[in-house]
Amino acid sequence: MPIKAGIYGATGYTGLELVRLLEQHPNACIHFLTSERSAGQSLRQSYPLAPDIPLIQADDAPLDQADCVFLCLPHTRSAPLAAQALAHGMRVVDLSADLRLDDPAIYEQWYRVPHPAPDLLPKPYGLPELGREMLRGADCIANPGCYATAALMGTVPLARHKLLIPGAPLIVDAKSGVSGAGRTPKQNTLFCEVHGNFSPYSIGRAHRHLAEIEQVLAAEGSASGPVIFSPHLLPTDRGILATIYAQVRDTDAARAVFEEMYGEEPLVNLLPPGELAALAHVVRTPLTAISLTPAADNLLIVVVAIDNLLKGASSQAVQNFNLMWNLPETAGLLPWR
Amino acid sequence: MPIKAGIYGATGYTGLELVRLLEQHPNACIHFLTSERSAGQSLRQSYPLAPDIPLIQADDAPLDQADCVFLCLPHTRSAPLAAQALAHGMRVVDLSADLRLDDPAIYEQWYRVPHPAPDLLPKPYGLPELGREMLRGADCIANPGCYATAALMGTVPLARHKLLIPGAPLIVDAKSGVSGAGRTPKQNTLFCEVHGNFSPYSIGRAHRHLAEIEQVLAAEGSASGPVIFSPHLLPTDRGILATIYAQVRDTDAARAVFEEMYGEEPLVNLLPPGELAALAHVVRTPLTAISLTPAADNLLIVVVAIDNLLKGASSQAVQNFNLMWNLPETAGLLPWR
Amino acid sequence: MPIKAGIYGATGYTGLELVRLLEQHPNACIHFLTSERSAGQSLRQSYPLAPDIPLIQADDAPLDQADCVFLCLPHTRSAPLAAQALAHGMRVVDLSADLRLDDPAIYEQWYRVPHPAPDLLPKPYGLPELGREMLRGADCIANPGCYATAALMGTVPLARHKLLIPGAPLIVDAKSGVSGAGRTPKQNTLFCEVHGNFSPYSIGRAHRHLAEIEQVLAAEGSASGPVIFSPHLLPTDRGILATIYAQVRDTDAARAVFEEMYGEEPLVNLLPPGELAALAHVVRTPLTAISLTPAADNLLIVVVAIDNLLKGASSQAVQNFNLMWNLPETAGLLPWR
Amino acid sequence: MPIKAGIYGATGYTGLELVRLLEQHPNACIHFLTSERSAGQSLRQSYPLAPDIPLIQADDAPLDQADCVFLCLPHTRSAPLAAQALAHGMRVVDLSADLRLDDPAIYEQWYRVPHPAPDLLPKPYGLPELGREMLRGADCIANPGCYATAALMGTVPLARHKLLIPGAPLIVDAKSGVSGAGRTPKQNTLFCEVHGNFSPYSIGRAHRHLAEIEQVLAAEGSASGPVIFSPHLLPTDRGILATIYAQVRDTDAARAVFEEMYGEEPLVNLLPPGELAALAHVVRTPLTAISLTPAADNLLIVVVAIDNLLKGASSQAVQNFNLMWNLPETAGLLPWR
Repeated sequence: MPIKAGIYGATGYTGLELVRLLEQHPNACIHFLTSERSAGQSLRQSYPLAPDIPLIQADDAPLDQADCVFLCLPHTRSAPLAAQALAHGMRVVDLSADLRLDDPAIYEQWYRVPHPAPDLLPKPYGLPELGREMLRGADCIANPGCYATAALMGTVPLARHKLLIPGAPLIVDAKSGVSGAGRTPKQNTLFCEVHGNFSPYSIGRAHRHLAEIEQVLAAEGSASGPVIFSPHLLPTDRGILATIYAQVRDTDAARAVFEEMYGEEPLVNLLPPGELAALAHVVRTPLTAISLTPAADNLLIVVVAIDNLLKGASSQAVQNFNLMWNLPETAGLLPWR
Repeated sequence: MPIKAGIYGATGYTGLELVRLLEQHPNACIHFLTSERSAGQSLRQSYPLAPDIPLIQADDAPLDQADCVFLCLPHTRSAPLAAQALAHGMRVVDLSADLRLDDPAIYEQWYRVPHPAPDLLPKPYGLPELGREMLRGADCIANPGCYATAALMGTVPLARHKLLIPGAPLIVDAKSGVSGAGRTPKQNTLFCEVHGNFSPYSIGRAHRHLAEIEQVLAAEGSASGPVIFSPHLLPTDRGILATIYAQVRDTDAARAVFEEMYGEEPLVNLLPPGELAALAHVVRTPLTAISLTPAADNLLIVVVAIDNLLKGASSQAVQNFNLMWNLPETAGLLPWR
Repeated sequence: MPIKAGIYGATGYTGLELVRLLEQHPNACIHFLTSERSAGQSLRQSYPLAPDIPLIQADDAPLDQADCVFLCLPHTRSAPLAAQALAHGMRVVDLSADLRLDDPAIYEQWYRVPHPAPDLLPKPYGLPELGREMLRGADCIANPGCYATAALMGTVPLARHKLLIPGAPLIVDAKSGVSGAGRTPKQNTLFCEVHGNFSPYSIGRAHRHLAEIEQVLAAEGSASGPVIFSPHLLPTDRGILATIYAQVRDTDAARAVFEEMYGEEPLVNLLPPGELAALAHVVRTPLTAISLTPAADNLLIVVVAIDNLLKGASSQAVQNFNLMWNLPETAGLLPWR
Repeated sequence: MPIKAGIYGATGYTGLELVRLLEQHPNACIHFLTSERSAGQSLRQSYPLAPDIPLIQADDAPLDQADCVFLCLPHTRSAPLAAQALAHGMRVVDLSADLRLDDPAIYEQWYRVPHPAPDLLPKPYGLPELGREMLRGADCIANPGCYATAALMGTVPLARHKLLIPGAPLIVDAKSGVSGAGRTPKQNTLFCEVHGNFSPYSIGRAHRHLAEIEQVLAAEGSASGPVIFSPHLLPTDRGILATIYAQVRDTDAARAVFEEMYGEEPLVNLLPPGELAALAHVVRTPLTAISLTPAADNLLIVVVAIDNLLKGASSQAVQNFNLMWNLPETAGLLPWR
């Protein structure tokens, strides 16, 4: 019997990817799709290559007949639905930011609004390559942010093995394709504004994903100085590339800890010396590509590339779904080619 | 004394280009700029390379102190302001569709709304290369549509010289950059929807620019069959390329009539045989590039390229402004390089 | 036992797609890959997401151990290898132009060189949706050109059912992504030359794919006038969109013949009235999307979209391979999502 | 009498921009253009919007009749022609790397070839905003590298005023449009390789522009630790954006030194707090846009944007030309809009 999954917010870019992945998942089937704006239409009307599945309003979702829900909703709208679904005995993968931060006060500080369901906190943070013990069999998982996934994949190995020089800034210069900004029309994501342009935004200590990056690094016992996180908008549709400048005790030891952590990971491509991670390594795949470049004494450049809609959102959600249901973690994801 | 010009709708793509052109015009100065949404801000806040000029609401425009206004507004909003400006003794270049069609009934048929100021009609149609007698000294000029400019530049020489085979369809396969759709956020002009895509829309006999194309061709006495006009959206920001398939009496005679009409035009680049017009011939210039390819007996392919924001809108508006004020037609436009 | 396939010219864009498709094909395995320039390397060095398979020189191909070869080579280089493979008892899918034209004289007229292996001609033309009888069990199939596939999918239904008005020109305005020009570095396919540009080339009666388009239409008994074929280069990587202007006896009857021909085809998406085919319907899929728009009395616009590397090359080659080996035609192609 | 200028290497991207700038320069005229590959053709054959000027071979350049030459040539080919021109009494602006490094041994270390004309060294380094005393009236100026221009505009103010923390790494994460790689066809700059991709290259301590960056910073007495310089290739044609992470003694003092250095510069746009430099501030202009973002105690993010072909090459060459001939530095460059 396939696991019956509902997706809230199916017409956004991550929702569409999730539909695509679940459609070909050997152990899941799509039970319902919601969209407030397009309810009554078929998903195919939102996207020419999508399957012909009707869209319903969230309030009409048949909660008692589903096994699991994926929440592809804006923050503050997601957590109340998570609470509702959990109360109905369903499992939940939340792709919003609502369940990522353990402390509601920190949530309020970054998101400028009280946490919509503080009783749900904390929930396990679903970045399987960093630790999957808490995820297996979990009833609710917070799916990480796209930038946070890239930043953490490239820094946790160093933090965990105490390779970061205490107090030194940890610099993450990140670049994202435009789909990270969602499908709601805004002037700054119009074609004519992005084509031929490249622009930083919310650089330094201003972007909300910093909160989850620092929460995870703190839990790893990182003694590094402040994380400096600078996102930029790329004139392309998909992909995140993070160029990370880490001051480390020993650049030679760094490769060993990455190999130890990721050497056996089926969805991580730790590149050999001399090859640098690029979007072309990952776009339209669930993979993470990582390259390590010792640049000077104690200065290591870690380049991490992911597809923001897959490893940064929907394929990671499927990894979490698989762990939650005790399925093979890569079910429905391999072969990705 | 420079001519004092006001621009309504200065924050759209055509408005911005017009500001840029008038700023360096030897005989004009910018007197006011309006924007309903951004009134109170500087134009520079709308566009990083724009000059620092304050934006006001249309109702606050100092009409009695200006000499001329350019209307870069949506249809129906433009004509009432044209009437108001004319009543104040100003001259008007209207870049909207409101004054392009002589007959209010045809306007209503295509725009699905009664004409907002039928008493103003008819006004001279400002495509100078097709005839500038009516434009010199005019108090009000209807600036042509971008697609219509490309289509007419490539077909009027044939119609005027009776080269079109009566009854044969006249096919205009046109492709436009995304700026033609304006700067108001819509899903179909988001970067992620356009990047990697190419799509036809309103093909056949459905696009509103057909009305003005046919009005002009009819005035030329064209006996061709129906104009078939198929626009497509290109994954680039600027430029229109129209590939026109015309059934003609004599393909050899065609080049002669194009040379006769355009040979001395400073803003038309009639390409030699063997070179095909492309967007690279015209983007960011006020030029029209035209190539002629005899393809079969009686079948001529005319390729016309323009920048949709310049010859398709703002530089053509400056040509019309210059004619209206009896200035050299290319003042402020040459050298374009 | 999987069918052992060799691919000649594996590092080009079509070769890479073919590798990807055969890797996940249930009845095929890759036996060898050739590349003259990259022999000795792994395919992964040519493309970061390719599998790690060694490349050998064509002369070193283990012909006696393979069952089938795919030729992704330039014209003139392909036919001699086809002859050699056939002599070894292998089957051949030739993606070059060498075997598409039945008459060596016509080949020489278009390709300006004597046919390299005239004894091989004629071979069945592998466009399965137009007729698959000759393809089942064939030992050698000529895979159609990318533009020709799009043009023929949109015109053969009309020709076959005698709907084309005799003598009227049949106009195919086609637009292709840059990968159609191959991976060999040339100035006109550099990023900076294509970005922001859009350009026609070889328009009218000059492009080589005309020869195969007309050969097929003639075999269908088409009485239309000359085919006018105008390719344009799009600023995107993949996809062909052909906007076809056909003068037909009866636009209403046209939809019926398309539905009759394609209604049951698993890889054809005949769109409902009102929806126009776009690249977004087909890119990265083996599908053909087709829309029909009656534009005037007797004037039908057929829009056809394909992925030039898939239906225009490699997925069509897999359809042909499947037919050749009496496998289900869509083996390895569905589900494409 | 206009100054008669010759341009060597006129068909490359920087050569074309230089022709465009000199054509509209009030005090210069183009005397000859060279191109080894295209000699005998017109420049217009290389670029549809270029003026119709004949191209000659370098050996045929009428050296005795010109006043000044611009060298837009690869390194090693440039210096011998500089020596020849100087011997003929002409002045020289060299856009290659040959004259940028004072020490031939360092040149050989980075360029892996002996310096082709060591007797010419040292020559003044032409980055006028950093100091124009040596440039006024100079007979020969080394035009800086594009990346080096961006990096130095953003770091010299800090170095000169001793604001950099000694020993701390100075991190320059730079992103460039593809035109920086030149117009010679190579696989990695093909449209299909760049579109949808984003990739780092030569990161850390490997890119040749590091040598000139460090030479200038050393001359400023910089005590910073190693410069870490990471270039990336952007999917766009023009522009460089450098995101610079500098550890400084006092982030408040930083703005003051930038204002002191650049406050009166006509071609520098030092953005107000809260606005971040983007390519849209500079593309197709001779400007440098700079933003300053204090990110943490002692950590300043300087974002610098330039057009790689203008401030990174040809408009800077015109600034140098103007200084060399005691003309106003912005002659031919303003108004840029």
